Amino acid sequence: MTRNTIFKTGRELVLPKICILGSTGSIGRQALEVINALGPPYEIVGLSARNSYKKLEEQCRLYRPKQVALNNTEDAALLKENLGDLGVEVLTGDEGISSLAGDTEADLVLVATVGFSGLLPTLSALKSGKKVALANKESLVVGGELLSREIPQFREMVIPVDSEHSAIYQCLLGQNKEKVKKITLTASGGPFKNLYTEQLKEATPAQALKHPNWSMGPRITIDSATLMNKGFEVLEASWLFGLELERIEVMIHPQSVIHSMVEFVDGTVLAQMGTPDMRVPIQYALTHPDREPNDFPALDLLKHQLTFEPPDKERFPCLDLAYQAGKAGGTSAACLNAADEVAVDLFLKGVIRFNDIPRYIELTLKEHENVEEPSVDDIIEADWEARNRLVKTVARLG
Amino acid sequence: MTRNTIFKTGRELVLPKICILGSTGSIGRQALEVINALGPPYEIVGLSARNSYKKLEEQCRLYRPKQVALNNTEDAALLKENLGDLGVEVLTGDEGISSLAGDTEADLVLVATVGFSGLLPTLSALKSGKKVALANKESLVVGGELLSREIPQFREMVIPVDSEHSAIYQCLLGQNKEKVKKITLTASGGPFKNLYTEQLKEATPAQALKHPNWSMGPRITIDSATLMNKGFEVLEASWLFGLELERIEVMIHPQSVIHSMVEFVDGTVLAQMGTPDMRVPIQYALTHPDREPNDFPALDLLKHQLTFEPPDKERFPCLDLAYQAGKAGGTSAACLNAADEVAVDLFLKGVIRFNDIPRYIELTLKEHENVEEPSVDDIIEADWEARNRLVKTVARLG
Repeated sequence: MTRNTIFKTGRELVLPKICILGSTGSIGRQALEVINALGPPYEIVGLSARNSYKKLEEQCRLYRPKQVALNNTEDAALLKENLGDLGVEVLTGDEGISSLAGDTEADLVLVATVGFSGLLPTLSALKSGKKVALANKESLVVGGELLSREIPQFREMVIPVDSEHSAIYQCLLGQNKEKVKKITLTASGGPFKNLYTEQLKEATPAQALKHPNWSMGPRITIDSATLMNKGFEVLEASWLFGLELERIEVMIHPQSVIHSMVEFVDGTVLAQMGTPDMRVPIQYALTHPDREPNDFPALDLLKHQLTFEPPDKERFPCLDLAYQAGKAGGTSAACLNAADEVAVDLFLKGVIRFNDIPRYIELTLKEHENVEEPSVDDIIEADWEARNRLVKTVARLG
Repeated sequence: MTRNTIFKTGRELVLPKICILGSTGSIGRQALEVINALGPPYEIVGLSARNSYKKLEEQCRLYRPKQVALNNTEDAALLKENLGDLGVEVLTGDEGISSLAGDTEADLVLVATVGFSGLLPTLSALKSGKKVALANKESLVVGGELLSREIPQFREMVIPVDSEHSAIYQCLLGQNKEKVKKITLTASGGPFKNLYTEQLKEATPAQALKHPNWSMGPRITIDSATLMNKGFEVLEASWLFGLELERIEVMIHPQSVIHSMVEFVDGTVLAQMGTPDMRVPIQYALTHPDREPNDFPALDLLKHQLTFEPPDKERFPCLDLAYQAGKAGGTSAACLNAADEVAVDLFLKGVIRFNDIPRYIELTLKEHENVEEPSVDDIIEADWEARNRLVKTVARLG
């Protein structure tokens, strides 16, 4: 057993200079709250947003970063003017965000943007040798192969923010990763866990948007209801922990107390548990390898009864579609992700039914021409192509 | 955060030469089974037993250790004669067992003897710089203070075998121990978990000997029914992990799936789970810092519903008696242990009732004259004195 085969225990120093990409979104705002509570020496040196320039301006006045980036060029000019008194450097466009990720004086970049656009800044931060706290699923789901090709040592530099992956990461600390038998990602099962297939046909967006345990954005909430979110998490885990898909399992655990677990070859299972509060894994990613106290509500197991069920792959075919895309590799996961995004959007707009979501994704995946060892352009092309094809298929069949 | 504050991750090599003290007992025999299954390079170089010389002879013929020790001198002479053809060195008496523990060429000594007599060989092995897999509770419950005085670095050399402590040990790997908020030892609750106080008065030895989940010797089974066993485990955990008693909690978890857990200051809870099979923690102690595959039944969470209750300290006062003795320190835990051993014996013989066990232990503890920073002789004296006093009190009041 060499040093490398034992999962990093992270004896390095805590890195308190932090840059947050996507600081006006849900994860970004919770991260700011966490950093605020942690206090010095934790310090925000960079922030970025897509469009919300007013919110970004507010955040700049509160947290005084040295650099910010805004995707929208016109708004960036306005922001620059408004922030004139603070001496904040304002970068613009996708390139501005990637530059910020690479050039920031931060030691740690939290990538909390939504969508595939998170990949380039993630690459940029990693190439500059920065530690990355990764909340952007698509960087790995869609870009995992590219990322591991470009930065083979990325697993030593990335700390996951997703509660499931943070759980696995924590269970693997100090352990020999080669002795992992399987990992189990838990899933609440979503709001439709107990609906029959017939009832699923009638499920409305309003019903689907009521997640039993976690409060999240609309797309991820629908993805939780279809189990596609869990499918994305399986793909993410596979890249993050370097595990074959066969060794990643999903288990329905409606109470969301156990956030995920690892089974080793000797029969031992390590599990990470807690309240369903995203601030806990966010804080862990920021303070890793150490932990800091907080005043978030503690887990009270006396109030819980923990139950477990297998996922129903018949009623929720999205989970298998994700495994299928993962096994195909190449640009298949990009196709999966794009098709899902469009299908969810069409469901939310009332154009297609709930159980049409997996149906249209499957049709789109079937027609996908997979590109192996894809470049960024190949991925963008696959994404674009899948979106168009799904819309056309819906128009044809719907 | 220095190297010392991060709990040992054990990057050292696996140590395959093993000496087992108490090889004819339950833990010893299971350890032999585990080592047999592990195969080379795991090798047994020393064995010891108290009285079972025929069983020890059989084990010698099977495992070919270089040295053995037998407590009983006459039987040792017989054993030496019978083993003449194998060239095994036979040591005798308590000193023989301690010599074996210190002089064996083993890198790892499994102390699986029962009772306070385990302390001296444990000390002897640690003084010789050997790693100790500790299954002997009394070494820490009774001798913890002495052991930590004599060998301040013992925590880096001892791996617990008890399933609860093995669980905590595994949850702390790679973690900063200073950020532990509390540890929770789980308890099945024993066979009398749901009996009323009035029913407890009538509980028979035969009923008490039926443990719901684990198969163990008679004393530990009765100790499980009174919760005294959990009390001992609290004291053991306090020494093993260097934690104040206030930070060690007991929770009833009737399914015995979660073997114990650690809560950190950030609200994260890490738990170790598995089937109730002592071979798993035994194997872990032998293969640590690595893990090896085995064919023991795997945990199937789909078959379980996990529930949790607070321990009832009114109906089961032994738990509080243990905390009380632990807080008093000195020779109090020696008194507690001796009084419990005698009380359990008297219950099994039908002399006292089930709920007289805590009553007589409490009376004995009350009259105990505590000796601080005790020597081995002070502990032996306290043990002896407690046994006598409890018997006399029973004679007087019973």
